[in-house]
Amino acid sequence: MGETLNIALVGLGTVGAGVIRLVEENAELIARRAGKPIRIAGITARDRAKDRGVDLSPYEWVDDMGEFATREDIDVVVELIGGADGPALTLAKECLSGGKAFVTANKAMVAHHGLDLAQRAEQAGLAFKYEAAVAGGIPVIKGLREGAAANRLSRVYGILNGTCNFILSAMEKTGQDFAEVLAEAQARGFAEADPSFDIDGVDAAHKLSILAALAFGTELDFDGIERSGIRKILSADIAQAAALGYRIRLIGMAELDGSNGDARLFQRVHPYLVPMHHPLAHVEGSTNAVVAEGNFSGRLLFQGAGAGDGPTASAVVADLIDIARGEIGPAFSMPVRELDKVARAETGHRIGKCYLRFEVADRPGVLAEITAAMRDAGVSIESLIQKGRSPDGSVLVAMVTHEGPESAVAATLSALKGSPSLHADPLVVHILGD
Amino acid sequence: MGETLNIALVGLGTVGAGVIRLVEENAELIARRAGKPIRIAGITARDRAKDRGVDLSPYEWVDDMGEFATREDIDVVVELIGGADGPALTLAKECLSGGKAFVTANKAMVAHHGLDLAQRAEQAGLAFKYEAAVAGGIPVIKGLREGAAANRLSRVYGILNGTCNFILSAMEKTGQDFAEVLAEAQARGFAEADPSFDIDGVDAAHKLSILAALAFGTELDFDGIERSGIRKILSADIAQAAALGYRIRLIGMAELDGSNGDARLFQRVHPYLVPMHHPLAHVEGSTNAVVAEGNFSGRLLFQGAGAGDGPTASAVVADLIDIARGEIGPAFSMPVRELDKVARAETGHRIGKCYLRFEVADRPGVLAEITAAMRDAGVSIESLIQKGRSPDGSVLVAMVTHEGPESAVAATLSALKGSPSLHADPLVVHILGD
Ligand SMILES: NC(=O)c1ccc[n+]([C@@H]2O[C@H](COP(=O)([O-])OP(=O)(O)OC[C@H]3O[C@@H](n4cnc5c(N)ncnc54)[C@H](OP(=O)(O)O)[C@@H]3O)[C@@H](O)[C@H]2O)c1
Ligand SMILES: NC(=O)c1ccc[n+]([C@@H]2O[C@H](COP(=O)([O-])OP(=O)(O)OC[C@H]3O[C@@H](n4cnc5c(N)ncnc54)[C@H](OP(=O)(O)O)[C@@H]3O)[C@@H](O)[C@H]2O)c1
Repeated sequence: MGETLNIALVGLGTVGAGVIRLVEENAELIARRAGKPIRIAGITARDRAKDRGVDLSPYEWVDDMGEFATREDIDVVVELIGGADGPALTLAKECLSGGKAFVTANKAMVAHHGLDLAQRAEQAGLAFKYEAAVAGGIPVIKGLREGAAANRLSRVYGILNGTCNFILSAMEKTGQDFAEVLAEAQARGFAEADPSFDIDGVDAAHKLSILAALAFGTELDFDGIERSGIRKILSADIAQAAALGYRIRLIGMAELDGSNGDARLFQRVHPYLVPMHHPLAHVEGSTNAVVAEGNFSGRLLFQGAGAGDGPTASAVVADLIDIARGEIGPAFSMPVRELDKVARAETGHRIGKCYLRFEVADRPGVLAEITAAMRDAGVSIESLIQKGRSPDGSVLVAMVTHEGPESAVAATLSALKGSPSLHADPLVVHILGD
Repeated sequence: MGETLNIALVGLGTVGAGVIRLVEENAELIARRAGKPIRIAGITARDRAKDRGVDLSPYEWVDDMGEFATREDIDVVVELIGGADGPALTLAKECLSGGKAFVTANKAMVAHHGLDLAQRAEQAGLAFKYEAAVAGGIPVIKGLREGAAANRLSRVYGILNGTCNFILSAMEKTGQDFAEVLAEAQARGFAEADPSFDIDGVDAAHKLSILAALAFGTELDFDGIERSGIRKILSADIAQAAALGYRIRLIGMAELDGSNGDARLFQRVHPYLVPMHHPLAHVEGSTNAVVAEGNFSGRLLFQGAGAGDGPTASAVVADLIDIARGEIGPAFSMPVRELDKVARAETGHRIGKCYLRFEVADRPGVLAEITAAMRDAGVSIESLIQKGRSPDGSVLVAMVTHEGPESAVAATLSALKGSPSLHADPLVVHILGD
């Protein structure tokens, strides 16, 4: 590497254009901090003619992105296309075998192929970095990989999807239902036209799998994540939770259970009731926040903007500054061969409290039927509220259980399955424990 | 550096003993993350016989700490003595000229001599690191130096002293007055026997000066910090603030005003009224939190335990892991010669709202006297409450001003100075603006 860090930008959408603006606007500062200037030596995207709100004329456009993998005058290729496979992955492999450091914001690709890419990078002695892939502008990859590196981490969890948090906080404030708020978020550009990656928890799961691997020194296991999204949350649930002293947040939760030889990885993306005294209860709008609990550090919280051109570009360029400084090391904090392959935890044994909500027929005996099923399964009820009435005449029964095994709650639900008293699938929301 | 990172520990008090426990307990994990084991090759403190709650017999005790500066078998010296000058500073200089990397938790020394030491480290090509010096276990030095490195930062501020935050939150919860809570905190070991470094804001000011230098690329200027502590906060102030929708926190606030050529550094440690919607309002007990506002990242928040053996050791060992990985660079994010020397901001021009509290005689005309002084100085009042009565018969008048220059508030106070209506110096608390 010479007196300049020469980068190629592949993908000039929201994040790509943000990186150009950032590298231009903060050029002098970056050079002082990085020890050398960052120069955009080449760019590409699909459509050369598209107006991207930045002047591209100073930069060399290349039609074939594969060229960057071998060009002498490039040190780092920055991939901002997206997609777990396809051109992003092909490019990553070509770059790492072509001697180029590789920086990406692509959580889908890192979640699915991160270990393969990290191993290629290690073998080639190249940097592979992805700060922007998790929680946008928040330096949480660095926080775990380096800041908390001295700790055995027991849990890492957080609010990992800004769209979901935006929707949940808006429901909280306005009392509107999910569908209304989603439509508004889409109209205002806070949610994609096809929002399923966000609201069904896929995006949060991508990020969670990366955080878990880094935190615990385990292999990535995206497929091992138990996942559900926020579609089924009613404004009545949010009101109920508030009355009980909680807020509802979509949380990605990872925990390493048990000790060394017998460790098991628990990963879940799910709505949680968060007690008001917990900092995550106060994370509003599209903000993200990650908590890591270390055996010496205690609870660390990292919070900030989880997406957007500016914050995401900030994380991409932080990676570039690290590379310019020569501060690079194993992408997952330790060499890939050192990562543990651990079994998945069985969730049934987990102990916790949860919130249950039933939409039931408005007639005598229904509550007795539900509470009998709970008694039979050994679920004990801490509080219960029967309230409201849907347009279709059903009644909402909401309750919070005492601490108990999740399997007992599951047994209750299967006992009630198919009961004509239930007008809809019951909702289970876990309660975030300390 | 060889296959092991060999360290010497100087100072075996709270933090030193914590480092030993951490290095022992997490040894295997640290070796995997650091790429090599960390070995404690030598230790020292004042009193060899003292029981420190850890078994020191595996470690070589050395009477003269200066030995470590030149011993062949040491890579890094870790200073955990404390004190801005004296043995800590002598050791630091000897180590950096003796070819040893240097890690410290000593905010007083870094605040006063950090640039000198950083320059020596640069010249010798050695690491000089101090993550533990600011906000204990929170990796905020790394967060600013690396995570936010791509940004022009406009403000950095936070809750930097756990003792003060513990006292303020306890006053909030119990309604007790400052002196009572302090006595209790001392009895429980949360506050020093001589608490003045904490409660008068000196400790927070040490940390603030370091954060400001890192964030803005400016020289350290501890003496430029406008500082006051929390001694004068009454439980009535806290109740008043709560009624108005605020919590009182001791905040270290640094801001770089104006543009490049004409930039001015504003640094203040002061109690602030923090609006309830701000994350710092929810930081309770001895927790610390730092906010950094970048031109691309937006607002970043780092929160966690600001002190204690475990968290502080976590930060010390994070520095050691960085060194083992070879991830070292300029201590203040850029070489010392690149740091800007900027003038101090004049605080009078600053615009803001503030909370004013007067203890006045309980007789007619006093309120008119105060409000006339405010009118004459051009201070406009947003809300005013006259309430409570001290044992000595005086009345508390609390008010919040509209936005305006701080100089106008100062003018009000000097106009009222010496007035027999005032039973005590008025209290001014700034209101944290967005
Ligand atoms: N947006 C955020 O806030 C955010 C936050 C964190 C991480 N990320 C991640 O950052 C990456 C980029 O996101 P984005 O929001 O910037 O996406 P985007 O706005 O959709 O931009 C994608 C860019 O990739 C280009 N592209 C797509 N397929 C291509 C191909 N086959 N060949 C060449 N160029 C191709 C597109 O070209 P055209 O413009 O010519 O169509 C476009 O410029 C994704 O991995 C995303 O998950 C985004
Ligand atoms: N405590 C925290 O939570 C915390 C958090 C962040 C940063 N820090 C910083 O960490 C440093 C250490 O703090 P601490 O709380 O661990 O202090 P501490 O408990 O008072 O320990 C200080 C240690 O230094 C030793 N020492 C003092 N003078 C010495 C001398 N002249 N020669 C050799 N050893 C000497 C003492 O030896 P003896 O034990 O033999 O008397 C003791 O072991 C300070 O700079 C502090 O500001 C502390």
